[in-house]
Amino acid sequence: LRLESCHQHLRYNPLRDTWVLVSAHRMKRPWSGQVEKEEEDQVPQHDPNNPLCPGNTRANGEVNPDYNNTFVFENDFPALQPNAPDPGYNQHPLFQSKAARGVCKVMCFHPWSDVTLPLMTLPDIIKVIDKWAELMVDLGSTYPWVQIFENKGAMMGCSNPHPHCQVWASNFLPNEATLSDRCQREYLKTHGEPLLLQYAKMEAERQERVVVQNADWLAVVPYWATWPFQTLLLPRRHVQRLTNLTAQEREGLASIMKRLLTKYDNLFQISFPYSMGWHGAPTGPYLKEDQFHWQLHAHYYPPLLRSAGVRKFMVGYEMLAQEQRDLTPEQVIHLGNSITATYAIYKHR
Amino acid sequence: LRLESCHQHLRYNPLRDTWVLVSAHRMKRPWSGQVEKEEEDQVPQHDPNNPLCPGNTRANGEVNPDYNNTFVFENDFPALQPNAPDPGYNQHPLFQSKAARGVCKVMCFHPWSDVTLPLMTLPDIIKVIDKWAELMVDLGSTYPWVQIFENKGAMMGCSNPHPHCQVWASNFLPNEATLSDRCQREYLKTHGEPLLLQYAKMEAERQERVVVQNADWLAVVPYWATWPFQTLLLPRRHVQRLTNLTAQEREGLASIMKRLLTKYDNLFQISFPYSMGWHGAPTGPYLKEDQFHWQLHAHYYPPLLRSAGVRKFMVGYEMLAQEQRDLTPEQVIHLGNSITATYAIYKHR
Ligand SMILES: O=P(O)(O)O[C@H]1O[C@H](CO)[C@@H](O)[C@H](O)[C@H]1O
Ligand SMILES: O=P(O)(O)O[C@H]1O[C@H](CO)[C@@H](O)[C@H](O)[C@H]1O
Repeated sequence: LRLESCHQHLRYNPLRDTWVLVSAHRMKRPWSGQVEKEEEDQVPQHDPNNPLCPGNTRANGEVNPDYNNTFVFENDFPALQPNAPDPGYNQHPLFQSKAARGVCKVMCFHPWSDVTLPLMTLPDIIKVIDKWAELMVDLGSTYPWVQIFENKGAMMGCSNPHPHCQVWASNFLPNEATLSDRCQREYLKTHGEPLLLQYAKMEAERQERVVVQNADWLAVVPYWATWPFQTLLLPRRHVQRLTNLTAQEREGLASIMKRLLTKYDNLFQISFPYSMGWHGAPTGPYLKEDQFHWQLHAHYYPPLLRSAGVRKFMVGYEMLAQEQRDLTPEQVIHLGNSITATYAIYKHR
Repeated sequence: LRLESCHQHLRYNPLRDTWVLVSAHRMKRPWSGQVEKEEEDQVPQHDPNNPLCPGNTRANGEVNPDYNNTFVFENDFPALQPNAPDPGYNQHPLFQSKAARGVCKVMCFHPWSDVTLPLMTLPDIIKVIDKWAELMVDLGSTYPWVQIFENKGAMMGCSNPHPHCQVWASNFLPNEATLSDRCQREYLKTHGEPLLLQYAKMEAERQERVVVQNADWLAVVPYWATWPFQTLLLPRRHVQRLTNLTAQEREGLASIMKRLLTKYDNLFQISFPYSMGWHGAPTGPYLKEDQFHWQLHAHYYPPLLRSAGVRKFMVGYEMLAQEQRDLTPEQVIHLGNSITATYAIYKHR
């Protein structure tokens, strides 16, 4: 047993240039705080009042088609619209603003409300991946950043149980994209290899933090994970964007996503909540630039800590000083070893 | 009405060198997501089973004194302990760890469980401030960073209703401290005046984002606020640390805290949840260095958005791309103008 597994220490996140405080011994503390209520599990396959279901009418009066797999539409309450005016220049350094323009889309994964990605078939998951790549091509042709993300579960602010994700494209590189771009660029410069390509190789060799893997993909609890059950999904080949994935890699991705998410669901035998999203090389004007330092990856950030009802609160110390976790990534792997990734113990209803 | 008040835009946070996406029009979207349960409001003044009350026995067998105002003890389940071993050198750049050492203390504000800071008398709040300064002297004599923070309310991960805060001292500068230090240092270098000193002067002149103020202090919704009702508490004089506050400034601080927190409670007529904490010049070895760029301040981060039950979720887009808010700081001031800061509409029980 290494020192790290029993004593508090800091770990460096090379993708964000930050540190996380790892307090391996904190899982023992009693919990008398907030307990989350169980997710509503009685979702009907089709709800005539749900604006995401096929054939239903949305807030703006539009009627959804009778779709069979994925379905994409414009968010009816977008945080980004295409035509916001420029707030103007000549600003004081303490009162700086900039124009923000973009689009927000919603993408349904499946016509049924009572499935989730891990409960879908591989061909249906591949259709989701293909649609992601298609959206990256369309929106990425002009917008520098296209953020695909899924908020799953009420605990993660999701207000509709129908399986869906969101795609927000913006005329600016968001903070996290800028930071990750800088870190990957500097790593390549200093070490001669893309950061995440080298990282995937080393994790594949060490097999200490691997959750699931196949010929083309690797899902690990990263060495620097912040959320208790955080994972990082990585291709083994150097791939800069979702659009560059081969047909075989898309099949492999569908399969590893299904296994990873099945494992999550089986951990506490619930439909596991999380926020996830894709990071890849920027697009729009950046398509013409060298982006060799980038490696495509997805982050999964699940909020739970001990059980279906007890979450990790990222609050006072975390907001004001530094993120802190209560068990090591290696302890998570140990915990997860007995959890199956191949069939659902947890099933809807 | 300025352009900013109706159109989405980005605002720059000079303390963190990041941007926030402000979508002024998002408050209109309907909410069918998670609704928080009302905080338990039946807290007895003294609970024989609460380890924070005077005279009770804690987890480690120690008996609390029969304290009359504040009471400080070591956290029984600390994230930081003083003697963790060093994980060792010669590490790969992708697997870096460092020793983390420190102490975690809990500080009760008052012997009664059924009060909160805004419901306490000014002399009792001054005792809290004096004790904060005392802890900064003690722990700050050796530790470079002493983080005083309060998680208030179950929604903010607080597991004990007794009024208290925490003090975590570490042998390292946490991420947020490092970032704030860098931003303030660079601002002074470029603009010749400490960032927050200049900012407080400008906000005091403009009076557009001021929530409450007195001769020595200012509480504003910062121009770059991320959380809907976030505030920044600033001294008017250049003060680097809590320990440097004069007796008059401590009185003024007690008074402005009481007014700010009363206003928070009155907004939705509940005991308003938040995480708050103090940032000041680093201590320990830094006590000997020039820290002129630093200005003492407190951040208040409340989670609520629309009502006592509907919070702002900082999830998918915020975690993976950039923080986003649904109303402008100026709209918050407008909303808050009719809310009294001088007496509690909301009262415990
Ligand atoms: O120490 P407490 O109050 O038990 O714990 C609370 O505050 C800590 C510091 O912000 C967090 O790490 C915990 O997740 C939270 O539940
Ligand atoms: O767009 P939705 O699903 O209504 O909203 C959810 O996701 C957004 C993007 O992460 C967040 O800004 C909201 O706070 C959250 O409730």
